[in-house]
Parts: sequence; structure tokens; C-alpha cells
Amino acid sequence: MFSQPAPVTGSTSSSDLPVNSPLAAAAVTTTSTTTAPASPAAANQGQDAEGRQSAAAAPCSSELAGWKMKLKAALRHFPDFPIKGIDFVDIMPLFLDPAVHDILVSALDLQIKELYTENPPDVIVGLDARGFLFGPGLALRRAVSFAPVRKKGKLPGPCVTAEYRKEYGVDLFQMQKDAIKPGQKVLIVDDIIATGGSAKAAADLVKQLGGEIMGFLFILEIPGLHGREKLEGIQTTILLEDA
Amino acid sequence: MFSQPAPVTGSTSSSDLPVNSPLAAAAVTTTSTTTAPASPAAANQGQDAEGRQSAAAAPCSSELAGWKMKLKAALRHFPDFPIKGIDFVDIMPLFLDPAVHDILVSALDLQIKELYTENPPDVIVGLDARGFLFGPGLALRRAVSFAPVRKKGKLPGPCVTAEYRKEYGVDLFQMQKDAIKPGQKVLIVDDIIATGGSAKAAADLVKQLGGEIMGFLFILEIPGLHGREKLEGIQTTILLEDA
Repeated sequence: MFSQPAPVTGSTSSSDLPVNSPLAAAAVTTTSTTTAPASPAAANQGQDAEGRQSAAAAPCSSELAGWKMKLKAALRHFPDFPIKGIDFVDIMPLFLDPAVHDILVSALDLQIKELYTENPPDVIVGLDARGFLFGPGLALRRAVSFAPVRKKGKLPGPCVTAEYRKEYGVDLFQMQKDAIKPGQKVLIVDDIIATGGSAKAAADLVKQLGGEIMGFLFILEIPGLHGREKLEGIQTTILLEDA
Repeated sequence: MFSQPAPVTGSTSSSDLPVNSPLAAAAVTTTSTTTAPASPAAANQGQDAEGRQSAAAAPCSSELAGWKMKLKAALRHFPDFPIKGIDFVDIMPLFLDPAVHDILVSALDLQIKELYTENPPDVIVGLDARGFLFGPGLALRRAVSFAPVRKKGKLPGPCVTAEYRKEYGVDLFQMQKDAIKPGQKVLIVDDIIATGGSAKAAADLVKQLGGEIMGFLFILEIPGLHGREKLEGIQTTILLEDA
């Protein structure tokens, strides 16, 4: 359906998925509107439809914008890594400074509140390995489940499997069968969307388990790979658009 | 110096390291004493020597013991995974239930408080990939740095490299050169200690960066592989000893 982009994915390894619909593009602006019923105004009131996660000091979108600036400032760029022509954005400084780390989790949490005010996710699904760096912390902050996606053979017990086609072969991803209950609302997170292949495989796994995919949330996007096109109209948000 | 144990490591992949000194063995009992100056009594008073991390409701070792029981109850065992003869302990249920997840991070935090009351770590180092599931969350809870150890080629920029010898070959692990400042106190965490090889490589990396290794903290240990023997007398704690 879509032609598979460059083999960059293998080296960046962690994340991939597509949705280049006008909808998805809109979801990626800093103050996100889109399919989500949430509004920044609701976030300003420090509460959501279900009354969970009401903030002591009401967070607001201007606060989120400020947090995003701080996060962008903490990122580092390494040109020509892992191969020539790739500008690699290093997210590790986000975890090295505990104040920045806290801002990262707070910003992701607030972004979710704004996007999914009336219909918050029950489960955060994170991709091995960089999605593990912040997915569980985000789930803990929101008091929801965290479930991992790993390459085939890493997870014990009954699993579902999805194929991730790459230009130079196929990878198989798995989730444990009891990681998601049918009908649970699922948000899939990873650090960076590249070609969108691994994120699409994660979505396939969630669907096999009967989960309702609320959307994808990435910290960053590798431009030019059209990763969102692969995500079939599912709401896709990049926290640090144009970082 | 020590003979390399079984090739089980490759399949369990995530963690490995040794210290079978009487010291290390003692550190592994539920109410840990050892080289650590901390005492459960200090924890009972809800404060540590530096006054950081004082708890609103003073935590105590009996609370820690109760948490450990709950964590053990949440684990699942899969016999003959990934190969025949291995009883694989699945830690993923710890992240699936947010209440259990919170207990995990609280228990690890309290264990560190009891072990390192007067000399708490400045940096949590976690091993790819399962050490990423709780290492960053633990660092965030304690308001300290998190720094990752990954296989060679995954981290951008200047790195230090350490060799991890396995029976069937060699793996190379890396940390970024600025992940640890000389003199910083470092705690290395992973989910399970198997042969101790990967944890030892992590310690080598921390030493190359001038970090002071306070100890190793694992959730579980695979018995019979003598992993601690490889850790050269560094304090090694297994949160769920005999789980």
C-alpha cells in the first residue's frame, strides 16, 4: 500500500509508525486539537471528565508549551549517526537531569490529558527498548497499566505475534496474551517514529488482543520517512514536533 | 578467575554479575545489614542522614517485608522458557497492575534508603532492556540521574566500551562518556542476575567513567549460576531473595 522507506529503521531500531492524514498532521501541532475531545481549556481547569488525575495546581497549555521548550533544549544532535546522512537526536539527556526527567513525564501526562480528556487510556504500551525508558514511568504517573512489546522470543507464556516488514527482511514482535483485556483503551508510546513499521506492528498486536487503540504518542519524529502514513488514520502525536 | 557458567545468559539476555563473598550474601537477606551504614531503625524514623527522601508516613522494614510479599505473589513462573530446564520468572505482571508497580518502585526506593542511608547514590545505571522498565522510574522517585548501558552501536556520541565474555563469544556494552561525572556515586540495577557477566561489564563502564560503585540492586536472581561471584566484592542486593 505504501512503499517502504529507507533502511534507516534497522539502525534507529526502536520506533516506527504512520498516519499522514490531515487529521494526524493537526494532532501534531503544539496545542493539539484533532479527533480528541479534550481541549486545553479543560486541562486549564485541572480536571478531566472522569475526575481522575485532577492536578493540585491546575496545569495549562502554556505550561505545556514551556515544558516542551525545556525538553527541546535538553536534546542533543549527533550528525551522521548511526550512518552517514542521519541526524541522530539523542534523548538520553532527558533522563540524566532529574528535573528534566520529571518535566518529560509531566509533559507526556499533560499531553494525554489534553488529547483524551473524556476518554483516557487504560493501558500504556511501550516498545523495546527506548519506549521502556519513559513508558512505565508515564503509566505509573497516570496509575494505569504498562505492557511491553518485544521481539519474538523475549516474552514468556502465550503471546500474540505481528510481523514488521523491513526492506531487508522481517522482524516479529510479540505481546503477552493477557497484557491487554478486550475493550481496554490503549495508547502506544515510543521515543521516535521513523518509518512507522514497528509502531504499526504494535498496533496489530493490540488489535489482536481486542484493545481499542486511542492513539500513538512519540517524543520525536524523524522527518522525511513518512512514518505516520503507515498508521492508518490513528491519532498520532509528536510531543516535540519540529524539535 | 571464575569459570564462566552455562550459556543460559544469552537467552535471558538482560542481566548478569557476581559477588559471592559472605558480605554480599548477607546483603541479600530481607532486612539487609552488610557494608551499608543504614539500619532499618533509621528508615523507621522516616529520614536519612542527608535529610533527603524523608517520608511523609515513616516507612519501616516491616512495610518493606510486606511489599516484598506482594511483589513475589505477582510474579509468574514459566518452566522450560526460553530453553528446557530453565524456570523463567516473568516480571511483567509487576508493571501491569499500577498498584503493584507503585509498590515495586517504593520497595526499591526503601531498600536503597536502608542500604545507603548516609551515602545515597547520585546515579542509577540501568541495563538494556528490562533494567529500563524500572530504573528510570526509580531514579525519578529518588530525584537522581538515570544513565543507560546498551550494546555497542546503540548510543550516539563519545562512549566507553566494555567487553562481556560469554561462552559462545563476546558482546560489547557501552555508556556515553558524559553519563557519569567522576566521583559520582552509582547504583547499577537490572531485573535479574544470571551469570553476572553483563552486570560486571556495566561496572567496568562505570569505573572507566570515574564513578564510585555503591552496589548492584536486582529484583531477582537465577539460582545456581553463581552470578554474584563475578562481582568482585561489590555489595549486591536481590530485592526478592528466594522469590
